[in-house]
Amino acid sequence: MISSEDAPAFPLCATIGIIGTGLIGGSMALDIRHAGLSSALLGTNRRPESSAEALRLGLIDRAVSLEELLCESELILLCIPAGAAAKMLPGILDRIGERIRSASASDRPQPVVLDVCSVKGVIVDAVKGHPFRGRYVAGHPMSGTEYSGPSAAREDLFRGKAGILCDAEDSDADAVALVERLYDALGMRTVRMDSASHDVHTAYVSHLSHVLSFALALTVLEKEKDDKHIFDLASGGFSSTVRLAKSNADMWVPVFSQNRKNLLGVMDAYLARLQEFRSAVEADDADAMRSLIEAANKIRRIIK
Amino acid sequence: MISSEDAPAFPLCATIGIIGTGLIGGSMALDIRHAGLSSALLGTNRRPESSAEALRLGLIDRAVSLEELLCESELILLCIPAGAAAKMLPGILDRIGERIRSASASDRPQPVVLDVCSVKGVIVDAVKGHPFRGRYVAGHPMSGTEYSGPSAAREDLFRGKAGILCDAEDSDADAVALVERLYDALGMRTVRMDSASHDVHTAYVSHLSHVLSFALALTVLEKEKDDKHIFDLASGGFSSTVRLAKSNADMWVPVFSQNRKNLLGVMDAYLARLQEFRSAVEADDADAMRSLIEAANKIRRIIK
Repeated sequence: MISSEDAPAFPLCATIGIIGTGLIGGSMALDIRHAGLSSALLGTNRRPESSAEALRLGLIDRAVSLEELLCESELILLCIPAGAAAKMLPGILDRIGERIRSASASDRPQPVVLDVCSVKGVIVDAVKGHPFRGRYVAGHPMSGTEYSGPSAAREDLFRGKAGILCDAEDSDADAVALVERLYDALGMRTVRMDSASHDVHTAYVSHLSHVLSFALALTVLEKEKDDKHIFDLASGGFSSTVRLAKSNADMWVPVFSQNRKNLLGVMDAYLARLQEFRSAVEADDADAMRSLIEAANKIRRIIK
Repeated sequence: MISSEDAPAFPLCATIGIIGTGLIGGSMALDIRHAGLSSALLGTNRRPESSAEALRLGLIDRAVSLEELLCESELILLCIPAGAAAKMLPGILDRIGERIRSASASDRPQPVVLDVCSVKGVIVDAVKGHPFRGRYVAGHPMSGTEYSGPSAAREDLFRGKAGILCDAEDSDADAVALVERLYDALGMRTVRMDSASHDVHTAYVSHLSHVLSFALALTVLEKEKDDKHIFDLASGGFSSTVRLAKSNADMWVPVFSQNRKNLLGVMDAYLARLQEFRSAVEADDADAMRSLIEAANKIRRIIK
């Protein structure tokens, strides 16, 4: 008798291929290996040294070319910045289409591609009407850190987080089911929404936080030019608000660019509240400051 | 032979009195008791229920009136919001003066009062030229959380943090030495500076963080009025930047008010950087966004 502990925990498919084994792709790789979700884990990266590092860190079984990965994987995880993902996705669907049409692949499960980008509208638009659109699932695991690259990968990054699944009606049912099983195995709860809502929501609860953190870092670093001790008093509160300013430009420039319209609206709403706060401080209006702070305190209901 | 473990660890003085046994006062109380820094620990609060709670939580030995506390304590810790502290401090120094002048106190150590407020200029100004100014030490332990009240007190809140000591030349040498020993026993490194520099530094690395976090909370809570699912995607990044928005108005209104001039200057610098960011996003200028983000990334040098 084989005990349940010896059995492969949760096989999803034979081969999973990860395009971009950085923070997100690499962390998924760790959990996929740990849970025994596939028998082979392939990785490819724009920079060969990233693949070498992913291999050295044990994130993947084999570093392969993009072509090999697209040829061999049943599940393709597209874990690269949003700009590059939008450009690459139509070609990936073309290649999946060729595999499906070819006789040799007819008895294997049809490949699925999932992307994990922080912005969905532009990516979804890039493959609108593609004959194999159904093999693509628009995802977004709501987790991350301010670090990047294969060395930033860590286990259990996604546990307890929301796994977004956008426009599920545009994907084939088996593709959606596969992604839901992946999310489940990674410890995420699946949250479905349309891509337009996703992009508004992330502008509010993710993209704006990054912008204000970048601006905070810039403000205090600028001051440091004429006061080199300005950081001497920096404590936990500052670290907490400025943490996201360590985030990578390669990831965030395309996100801000592709979600520009939503982000500008949200920034304007934020600037208006900041100006309201500034007016209360300038007028030394304690009642106005108090009512703004107490209104803000309602966030206690959301953030425990 | 008494082993070193049985000996009182580090007695500073017989009686320490804490005015305001909330987050900061209460946390100091816990460390003071733990380290055996005094033989009696007294507490007083504006609200009797806060004193009762501090007693129940074991933060203090005795809940007393302000008058009793000022009469009995060798070290008085003034741990109340900045506005109230500035109002109360001259009277405390008057009372310390009476004790020093009275014959019965002549052979006891002269009392010292330390305040812990996040803004120093207004408080220092309130006792400028006071005949017993030397018995007051202007302090600021750079630690805290977004919670308040006696139940928010916790051990080791100050370990590894900066213990600011302002305008030390205006305090008596023995008073400064006592505070340095307290900071040391609480695990803080003493950092000396003048109160004007303190107030500029805290505007940059503490007060601004609070303002932008309050404004972030207001922005997203406002959006929630017409989109009740807006927080569904909130993740670690949002929690981190919005955490300070849970902070208490009783503490922060007087800080913003008393440090108004510095804070307005810092907010304007921040608003300018935010507008710069907004312009880059609006123009979809990837190079400009990248250079702002990469400049902000220099914060990695400061925040590990």
